[in-house]
Amino acid sequence: MQLITHADALAARETLTRQLGTAGPVRTPLLPVPESERDRPLLLKPESLQPIGAFKIRGALHATATLDERTRSRGIVAYSSGNHARAVAYAGRAFDIPTTVVVPRTAPETKVAAARALGAEVVLVEVAEREARAERIAAETGATLIPPFDSPAVIAGQATVGLEIAEDLRSREVPAATVLVPISGGGLISGVGAALAGADARIRLIGVEPLLAADTREGLRAGHRVDWPVAERTRTRADGLTAQPSELTFEHIRTFVDDVVTVTEEEIGEAVGHLATTCGLVAEPSGAVTTAAHRHRSAELPTGTTVAVVSGGNIDSERLISSLAG
Amino acid sequence: MQLITHADALAARETLTRQLGTAGPVRTPLLPVPESERDRPLLLKPESLQPIGAFKIRGALHATATLDERTRSRGIVAYSSGNHARAVAYAGRAFDIPTTVVVPRTAPETKVAAARALGAEVVLVEVAEREARAERIAAETGATLIPPFDSPAVIAGQATVGLEIAEDLRSREVPAATVLVPISGGGLISGVGAALAGADARIRLIGVEPLLAADTREGLRAGHRVDWPVAERTRTRADGLTAQPSELTFEHIRTFVDDVVTVTEEEIGEAVGHLATTCGLVAEPSGAVTTAAHRHRSAELPTGTTVAVVSGGNIDSERLISSLAG
Repeated sequence: MQLITHADALAARETLTRQLGTAGPVRTPLLPVPESERDRPLLLKPESLQPIGAFKIRGALHATATLDERTRSRGIVAYSSGNHARAVAYAGRAFDIPTTVVVPRTAPETKVAAARALGAEVVLVEVAEREARAERIAAETGATLIPPFDSPAVIAGQATVGLEIAEDLRSREVPAATVLVPISGGGLISGVGAALAGADARIRLIGVEPLLAADTREGLRAGHRVDWPVAERTRTRADGLTAQPSELTFEHIRTFVDDVVTVTEEEIGEAVGHLATTCGLVAEPSGAVTTAAHRHRSAELPTGTTVAVVSGGNIDSERLISSLAG
Repeated sequence: MQLITHADALAARETLTRQLGTAGPVRTPLLPVPESERDRPLLLKPESLQPIGAFKIRGALHATATLDERTRSRGIVAYSSGNHARAVAYAGRAFDIPTTVVVPRTAPETKVAAARALGAEVVLVEVAEREARAERIAAETGATLIPPFDSPAVIAGQATVGLEIAEDLRSREVPAATVLVPISGGGLISGVGAALAGADARIRLIGVEPLLAADTREGLRAGHRVDWPVAERTRTRADGLTAQPSELTFEHIRTFVDDVVTVTEEEIGEAVGHLATTCGLVAEPSGAVTTAAHRHRSAELPTGTTVAVVSGGNIDSERLISSLAG
């Protein structure tokens, strides 16, 4: 199986810059948290500050950018629990092409409204039907399906997060850091792993899952993918972390990821509150799992500089209030 | 009167980089807000993401960096309604020198605790006494007083915000933008004005004040500084915007600022909620006034690309919850 490489990540960044310029992803900084422990200083990578509030914009824009112009003009379609839908809607607007997103009825209203506001047609379906419906739309209209993670072009787009982390760690002269990345379908951690491995072999990469959706940790220990029932995986409040790796992303994870740690629902909620009150960042639960791991799983993590990727910030105000109220 | 120049801003950045490297201020990006109106696209400059949660870190670090080593070793002292105290505490830790901050009893607990956590000695006093007490401490210990705004070195430090905005606007190819900056003592807008005027004369600079603390707007119209009683100025929820310009900053404002607009308390609260739910940023009321102006004072503002400086993010969770709850 062909894995994404550091060179693919560099090429993806070049494509994004050439085709989109400053309409592409924001180059997010690493934000030091002065309140973090001295033996484990924390740097946040706030992908929650991307125009659509999540890293997903990188993969969606890159996958759309790599289509030939004629194919692209027929439009794009996606299925997603939320942020990928919004990212594809953003990509559709950026390239001015017809865009349809298939969203489960259970997705937070914020995410659905945002995709609509970006001009996409939104189709609401049951969770189990979303993939089939998106494929049917693609077949009927000639639009291209942009997968949420099971795609080399999408993974290469997410890999640009890893390029930036490696560069910023180098300028801080802390090459042997630990990087924490949430795992759901595994597109983000696959790309980040490929980029980091090619940039500096001393950087450790650790995945983070909710304890209630820890299929990847179990799969890595078993040596093969394991399947958790949807009803189990969707118990977590981290609604963006309920997918499971594909063969492609699982192979990346097996190759590039040093370990996976899990966090509880209470720890995720506490981290959402901490990020808001101490770090100035609104994170959705899925985006806060890495900060939760740094705060509550330090015994399972290496000491030294730690980077927590805050992957998204799209949270309804009611849920943010409840995390703030503790 | 000698005003800060673009060259001073460049020199300040050079000093910060040389002496502090990545322990200096974060180079914050411009964040596009896709939800903003098409004829008035909004870019946020999130100074709330600095390590101490506010732009004040720039001036405090620069003023401390420019002291000769012997003077600096005797320590630094500051009086402040909060964020400047925290910034000076951060500077004291960065240079490893004794640091005292004099804080009014009315300052939010978040800000006081944060200064203490950075190792500063915190002295709580009545608002009216803070300046005299800080000066006495300086006289007794040989420490240098770092003023919150009435200082060329502090203004030059804040000016680095303006350099970054001008550079990022240039790379976006939108030179004729409008930049919105909060006004309190005027250190930030003085520095930003100096940096922008030297970078691109087409950029318009507009100050924002709470209607309840609009002494600078009144002063600009009168052609001289006006004095509002403390009891009036402190009615606003924007607790970081209750100071008044000095002669030095007022002269910068008169030279560099095109206009001043005001926002109501309701508009400030709404903007805090909007920044959190739509832009992923926790802003304190003082940091949200520029976004409030963009959202609610568009009739008084030019069309075209607008940059809102989100100057700080230190807000107690109770107040954040109340803004989120609307």
